[in-house]
Amino acid sequence: MLVVQKYGGTSVGGLERIENVAKRVAKSREEGSDLVIVVSAMSGETNKLIDYANYFSKNPSKREMDILLSSGERVTAALLAIALQEMGHSAVALTGRQAGIRTDKSHTYARIETINTDRLNSEISNGNIVIVAGFQGINEKGEVTTLGRGGSDLSAVALAGALKADACEIYSDVDGIYTTDPRIEPKAKKLDFISYEEMLELASLGAKVLQNRSVELAKKMGVKIVAKSSFSENDGTVIAESKGENMEEVLVSGIALDKNQARVSLRGVTDRPGIAAEIFSKLADKSINIDMIIQNASENGTTNLGFTVPQNEIESAKEVMESFDHDLESADYDESVAKVSIVGVGMKSHSGVAATAFSALAKNGINIEMISTSEIKVSMIIDEKFAELAVRVLHEVYELDK
Amino acid sequence: MLVVQKYGGTSVGGLERIENVAKRVAKSREEGSDLVIVVSAMSGETNKLIDYANYFSKNPSKREMDILLSSGERVTAALLAIALQEMGHSAVALTGRQAGIRTDKSHTYARIETINTDRLNSEISNGNIVIVAGFQGINEKGEVTTLGRGGSDLSAVALAGALKADACEIYSDVDGIYTTDPRIEPKAKKLDFISYEEMLELASLGAKVLQNRSVELAKKMGVKIVAKSSFSENDGTVIAESKGENMEEVLVSGIALDKNQARVSLRGVTDRPGIAAEIFSKLADKSINIDMIIQNASENGTTNLGFTVPQNEIESAKEVMESFDHDLESADYDESVAKVSIVGVGMKSHSGVAATAFSALAKNGINIEMISTSEIKVSMIIDEKFAELAVRVLHEVYELDK
Repeated sequence: MLVVQKYGGTSVGGLERIENVAKRVAKSREEGSDLVIVVSAMSGETNKLIDYANYFSKNPSKREMDILLSSGERVTAALLAIALQEMGHSAVALTGRQAGIRTDKSHTYARIETINTDRLNSEISNGNIVIVAGFQGINEKGEVTTLGRGGSDLSAVALAGALKADACEIYSDVDGIYTTDPRIEPKAKKLDFISYEEMLELASLGAKVLQNRSVELAKKMGVKIVAKSSFSENDGTVIAESKGENMEEVLVSGIALDKNQARVSLRGVTDRPGIAAEIFSKLADKSINIDMIIQNASENGTTNLGFTVPQNEIESAKEVMESFDHDLESADYDESVAKVSIVGVGMKSHSGVAATAFSALAKNGINIEMISTSEIKVSMIIDEKFAELAVRVLHEVYELDK
Repeated sequence: MLVVQKYGGTSVGGLERIENVAKRVAKSREEGSDLVIVVSAMSGETNKLIDYANYFSKNPSKREMDILLSSGERVTAALLAIALQEMGHSAVALTGRQAGIRTDKSHTYARIETINTDRLNSEISNGNIVIVAGFQGINEKGEVTTLGRGGSDLSAVALAGALKADACEIYSDVDGIYTTDPRIEPKAKKLDFISYEEMLELASLGAKVLQNRSVELAKKMGVKIVAKSSFSENDGTVIAESKGENMEEVLVSGIALDKNQARVSLRGVTDRPGIAAEIFSKLADKSINIDMIIQNASENGTTNLGFTVPQNEIESAKEVMESFDHDLESADYDESVAKVSIVGVGMKSHSGVAATAFSALAKNGINIEMISTSEIKVSMIIDEKFAELAVRVLHEVYELDK
């Protein structure tokens, strides 16, 4: 059995914690697994290096940033190998280059193109625990590249895929994926299983355990992820392909909340071809991030258009809208809304899931300002002051605490 | 004109200091030089990483130490490149591998075997200031190696040699090579010039500006070194091949002092073949470092043998000597002696240089316990309490303050 384990910055955020990780790795080894361990930089280290670079430049060159930032993971990899060797285990630390991780040319946000597993396989057959510096690779020209925030997760998933590992265990300070944020709903339950698709929706809605790129890659390569805590012995959450039976049983897997939302509603927009494109191009030019977009069917030659932006971008959005004065009747802004979403693959095959949400919120006097749905998600924009209440109401109505 | 500049740990020991270095580099650039800059890790960084490793193991694996320790220089190289780019200069940071530095397989104390200058030359012709992470290379298997203490000096000299640079400027917090330690003799003068041979003697006698491996390599490759301070505009000291004229002029270049010496004198050693070898083999077995060795011509079938060891190794030396009880009449130890040395290529061709030293010390009531000479050096063991006085007396008698 070959397992890839990835330990995040908090899990290796100090020498004692690295020792704790070494003990966990040793235990897995003693239980008989071949192991490839991917490590992040010690927590705080990457930010420290970014601060260093920003001392000199607000916009430091990305190529040099990659040489700078890739050093943190090398330190952790070497230290963990040394700790394991001292415990009597054969271990070898590999840089991204030595682990055969080849990326494209995009500095600071490179994509993994191929993994040459020769060195990895030979170290594994020599009986070594292989420790890989996460977050980094080299491109075809031998330049050092990094994979962007959350890049060590990507390294781990890609290695698990290339090595056809039995599982990819992602360790952090959270012991799995929850039905919702336990700080909002103390009855939130840890999920034993969640499908890639649901995880993708939850991640894009702010669940911080795993980022979308890693989940997408895992889905593509068929890598089974287990999200676990390095500070407990709890089982964690398996993230994998959804199975038929599960779909029947679970309608809704989780409730997500994003409070950093502001709403823009445009009424009476001239319904001429390309008007929406014009509006959103202009917003993009100003680097305003659009989240939800809804458009009603037009009537009387005009249409209604609504979208949400991060709260600190609403003023810029207002400025853009003013330039469209002649194209719309009125614009309405709400700077304190929240997006609450229900996610579940079960929705695909069950009607009425969304209706349950709408009526539960209505019963509690919560008005829904915008709705957007996908096959496995329903997102609703509501007044921000009702955000936590809405999460608890929905958590209960779908019996997620059971 | 192509110049290699190397900045040591103190010179880059903080963000402001790196900025200061960037300004110096920019100035050299604006004066028209092509530049290859070699940097050390920020001061304290390498020791911090060693402490980290020692938390896990007293004897960490050297291969992993190299991955660990090589990270510090990468950070400095990236930051300096970013600082220069912000000042409007084209600059590129290269790791040891990217700079083409190929070493042998000895981890933590590798020797540079070859330098492939293709990338360096192409970056230079593209108009870039090239910043190289010092102290590191890779071996033929792609393993990361480091060059040992003072390794960044070695990187700089080797690069200067491979690129046929016009000079290799070594920047530290000292502005050159002095006739003796200015803390002992305030009249000590900075030398404008010193030969490789003299520098080798001075370095082995404790002058810390340059280590012997770098000077040896510079001599071998004919690299002109200039030792300078990064904190002043002073001219520094040129270290190069000695020239005829200089030899005539300067008898003695400097006075060196080593106070960490203890003397062992053996009287009436049985003069049988191999006895000296036996004694020194046994000392070597106990890892005792021998510095000076002198042996008098034998008389009456016995000989007198003397040597010095570091003061903290004298007890171990005594133990070894006890095992030779039957081979010698008496052993005499002095745990507080000092070695004072005069160094100068001029001695080669001038007799009487040593005699001047002996009589000057005698005039001041300083007894010489042992003497050892080479072509360009005379070392004398004296009572430690006279050490500083001896340095000043010799400094004056050779008119080094003139």
